[in-house]
Amino acid sequence: MADMTEFTAAIVAHAATVEQVLEELLPSVHGPEGRVVDAMRYAVLGGGKRLRAFLVLESAQLFDVAPTSAKRTAAAIECMHAYSLIHDDLPCMDDDDMRRGKPTTHLAFDEATAVLAGDALQSLAFEILLDPSTHANGEIRARLASALARAAGANGMVGGQMIDIQAEREALRISASGLDLTPGEPTRADVDAIARLQRLKTGALFEFSATSGALLADQDPEPLSRYAAAFGLAFQIRDDLLDVEGDEQAAGKRLRKDADMGKATFVGLMGVDGAGRRARELVAEASAALEPYGGSATLLRQAADFALHRTR
Amino acid sequence: MADMTEFTAAIVAHAATVEQVLEELLPSVHGPEGRVVDAMRYAVLGGGKRLRAFLVLESAQLFDVAPTSAKRTAAAIECMHAYSLIHDDLPCMDDDDMRRGKPTTHLAFDEATAVLAGDALQSLAFEILLDPSTHANGEIRARLASALARAAGANGMVGGQMIDIQAEREALRISASGLDLTPGEPTRADVDAIARLQRLKTGALFEFSATSGALLADQDPEPLSRYAAAFGLAFQIRDDLLDVEGDEQAAGKRLRKDADMGKATFVGLMGVDGAGRRARELVAEASAALEPYGGSATLLRQAADFALHRTR
Repeated sequence: MADMTEFTAAIVAHAATVEQVLEELLPSVHGPEGRVVDAMRYAVLGGGKRLRAFLVLESAQLFDVAPTSAKRTAAAIECMHAYSLIHDDLPCMDDDDMRRGKPTTHLAFDEATAVLAGDALQSLAFEILLDPSTHANGEIRARLASALARAAGANGMVGGQMIDIQAEREALRISASGLDLTPGEPTRADVDAIARLQRLKTGALFEFSATSGALLADQDPEPLSRYAAAFGLAFQIRDDLLDVEGDEQAAGKRLRKDADMGKATFVGLMGVDGAGRRARELVAEASAALEPYGGSATLLRQAADFALHRTR
Repeated sequence: MADMTEFTAAIVAHAATVEQVLEELLPSVHGPEGRVVDAMRYAVLGGGKRLRAFLVLESAQLFDVAPTSAKRTAAAIECMHAYSLIHDDLPCMDDDDMRRGKPTTHLAFDEATAVLAGDALQSLAFEILLDPSTHANGEIRARLASALARAAGANGMVGGQMIDIQAEREALRISASGLDLTPGEPTRADVDAIARLQRLKTGALFEFSATSGALLADQDPEPLSRYAAAFGLAFQIRDDLLDVEGDEQAAGKRLRKDADMGKATFVGLMGVDGAGRRARELVAEASAALEPYGGSATLLRQAADFALHRTR
């Protein structure tokens, strides 16, 4: 395992940076609509690893992108991510009561306010990216925001969440039928299906984050796309492993939900050892994709290592 | 009352145009994520007056905007509008069971799918606007999408819906307290507050629609902003009047909810006659704002007249 000191310091510093930008971009508001802004602030401020913001800021420094452009893009992706967490946690979706170690937004406020806060955070992500202060060139702003829209929609994050919910319902249906469906050898198709789910549900925003520096600098994003695809999958496999092995206190959310629900996971299909092996291969792929950037990409390499070794 | 034949023909023709564009932009999808696309199609296709699309297309023709630009912008605003209807109808919000004469999306599908379909329709609105085929100039695409993001978010549509929900809760609280709060003379502040609610909740998307032609042509949107503000308010006053007087069958949704809930409305504050008078003044203001465009704006003037006389 690589020395993580440098990475740990950087992710903490980047998180503080994006926190400050979000605080400036989303001040409290008086009046009756202030409640939705309070809920947006509750969901987006003061929490999370800010891994997507980290990817944006590190991607941006590969191309000497102006700090303001990078910081605003990092804030935008965190708004988009926070919106998806609020909506995923709703009673009609995953029905979660804890997130980042505190009550989920619909419990801290109410369901209607939570739906609206998520909606407005999505709008805010686009508003931030499209403001001229993000980049002087409108063509670049439009391309960046277009990439985010595609990553977020039915062919990206929302599509992945839909597949996930359908898979959960299918698992419940089989379990309720009382059939003894002892799983056989996992098929290639099973693993492909779950990898596709992940690529849409979390991979699309990872890819946007990792390629955003190239988009802001009008450079080829392809190597960073490959990095993000491998990294994102490794990150998700580690999530599945943590769901089995992890500590709820440290994770700040409820664990073992997936296994309890009978949902297909990488660990369920490949076993703990097989999933760990696959994650290590993917982290090596992610590192190899960064080859064009040499020593400038050290922290992005360490981020991929982190995906493998994190405990929450 | 002006002759509405020309207007009626135009709004039907424009609705058919935007329907076809939406059908092309949102084809059915196979696979497990197809369900969310089906729900998006259910909500956005085959219904509604398409008043916002009408405003876009008529605004665009004032400035000789290319048909493709106008049609795609009209489709984008209808996606944004459809998303807001899906979420507003949710059980945790207005809990409506009919919309456009058919079951609301969460009843036709389920709540989780409805939340996701709304989310993805918002993303799709931006995706459509930001695609190079909407306009060759990236600066203009970015400005247009930025205007939509501001209109949709916490300082626009979502903020208005939050105020509306808060007002409803306040009305229920007073009603539950058993106090006999017979309304006195409406104050200027009451009318201002409800006008502000409307300006945010529905006015912001109206303004985006009416000004979009100017934005696409890089011209001054100010006269169209004034038109939209007056038109939007008149439209809402007529909505309040229809809520009291209207026919549920014709409206395609449940009526008299506002009055039953004890919510403040223009009609409640100003009476049927006062509200009607104010609506007529506003329609005159809307027409006056169109003066710079002469005869080219005839259909936009008729649209404002329609706001006054519509029966659904």
